[in-house]
Amino acid sequence: MSVLVVGSVALDSVETPHGKVDDALGGSATFFSAAASHFTDVSVVAVVGDDFPFQEIEFLKKRSVNFDGLVQKPGKTFRWGGKYLSDMNQRETLFTHLNVFEEFDPELPEKYKSIPYIFLANIHPQLQLKVLNQIQNPKLVVLDTMNFWIEGTPDALIEVLKKVNILIINDSEVRLLSGENNIFSGAKKILEMGPNILVVKKGEHGALLISNGSYFWAPAFPLEKLQDPTGAGDTFAGGFVGYLAKSGYVCDKNLRRAVIYGSTLASFCVEKFSLDRLKEINKNEIDERYQQFINMTKVE
Amino acid sequence: MSVLVVGSVALDSVETPHGKVDDALGGSATFFSAAASHFTDVSVVAVVGDDFPFQEIEFLKKRSVNFDGLVQKPGKTFRWGGKYLSDMNQRETLFTHLNVFEEFDPELPEKYKSIPYIFLANIHPQLQLKVLNQIQNPKLVVLDTMNFWIEGTPDALIEVLKKVNILIINDSEVRLLSGENNIFSGAKKILEMGPNILVVKKGEHGALLISNGSYFWAPAFPLEKLQDPTGAGDTFAGGFVGYLAKSGYVCDKNLRRAVIYGSTLASFCVEKFSLDRLKEINKNEIDERYQQFINMTKVE
Repeated sequence: MSVLVVGSVALDSVETPHGKVDDALGGSATFFSAAASHFTDVSVVAVVGDDFPFQEIEFLKKRSVNFDGLVQKPGKTFRWGGKYLSDMNQRETLFTHLNVFEEFDPELPEKYKSIPYIFLANIHPQLQLKVLNQIQNPKLVVLDTMNFWIEGTPDALIEVLKKVNILIINDSEVRLLSGENNIFSGAKKILEMGPNILVVKKGEHGALLISNGSYFWAPAFPLEKLQDPTGAGDTFAGGFVGYLAKSGYVCDKNLRRAVIYGSTLASFCVEKFSLDRLKEINKNEIDERYQQFINMTKVE
Repeated sequence: MSVLVVGSVALDSVETPHGKVDDALGGSATFFSAAASHFTDVSVVAVVGDDFPFQEIEFLKKRSVNFDGLVQKPGKTFRWGGKYLSDMNQRETLFTHLNVFEEFDPELPEKYKSIPYIFLANIHPQLQLKVLNQIQNPKLVVLDTMNFWIEGTPDALIEVLKKVNILIINDSEVRLLSGENNIFSGAKKILEMGPNILVVKKGEHGALLISNGSYFWAPAFPLEKLQDPTGAGDTFAGGFVGYLAKSGYVCDKNLRRAVIYGSTLASFCVEKFSLDRLKEINKNEIDERYQQFINMTKVE
């Protein structure tokens, strides 16, 4: 089944201990699509400025990512600049220029309105809600958010959470949103806010799938050298939602596999800057690493 | 096969957000024995003062823990006092009174010298070495250590590491001992110092088994309420070494199971203060939780 993503298409300037890029392709919708398109068709809702280098997304079009919902507006494309410190777990935002994204008012092309799998990437909860309200009969709604919205627009976030099936969130955001120090108590509280299922990303410690008293732990890939963590979360979401859409059925077995596929794609993402690694990888490499993930937790 | 442990038998005064105990049974050798004795015979090498309440270790004697190597000396038993902060990941040491432990000079009873499985708990590396040199033909040597020895007596630690098969260590100690920020690069460096196998404890994030390019990830148990984390690491070691000794054969399959048994026992340990929970549990409860651990990472 098809997937719709609403999020950002951006140009990122990133510095890590391993290098530096300027105005490289980035944005949540972009990373998500690059991952999800390995599994199914993806339709993108986003906005770019008149300076956007469209040739950069050519490789996504070839993987049947549809950009009819990518609007071009006069002005500059959303730009983000960040710097990662030596342990790669901490980053400093150098600048955030919303540019055309500031006035982003997502209107879905008619044919997008019947897409069954929806990913609401990390944008203003009111925009997430606006997109969701245009969908006729969503089969699965997955949402990402961040501390900025949890602290800044809690009411709007609570509103959209009521309409969501799966929330993808990181461990510190679980604490912030629930007000609980313990991640499992926090998860319980959040599950009462709307979502049936929580995916907690823990970076180098892997990911947790939590629903109704059931827990699934996924490892992280033992990478000795991360080039650039930017986009790893959206790439995870792309692998996760992409696999679920491909499988066409949301059950515990498929959810667990989806978490591993999400982790697999994210592990590739961080190996190079921008989308460079996601551009290269093919089905065989993905399946091989998926199997390595499975082997890392196997007990006979 | 039998296990020998050298470590501390202590009286702990502990405060957590959930309560407080004074002069409660503690010490690395004690927690280790309480866990390992569910799998095999354990022989303890340690020292206590003339104030030690021997009735406290009666339950261990009933589980065939041998205390012929527990020496009683004039003076007070080793005492430790600590306080855990609200998130239980940080603790403050309030006092450490070594007392009779200060002059501890481990001499093994003759019949201990042929025990095949050895656990050198977290004590001065020179004492660890002294014990090891008295063992005739160890089959497996497992060592625990901490930042105090890594920073304070690095030369002695390096010496004993050369004679060790498995090192149990936590993630921050991997960074400290290796000088590497990345845990996997750090592990590689440490494996060059002597041990063939590394077990990295990551607290609420589970544990990692690392050897020669192979990685096994174990989850942590999703506990909403930890009463008291004291002794969890030694309890982990007890389940880990105890299971290996029982299986009698160190291979990847048994090592993985041993990590899960270690995690299982540790998850019980923290549910009550001191050894209270370890005192209660039986084989059925252990096996049931072991199976819950297995299910938490299963992918079909």
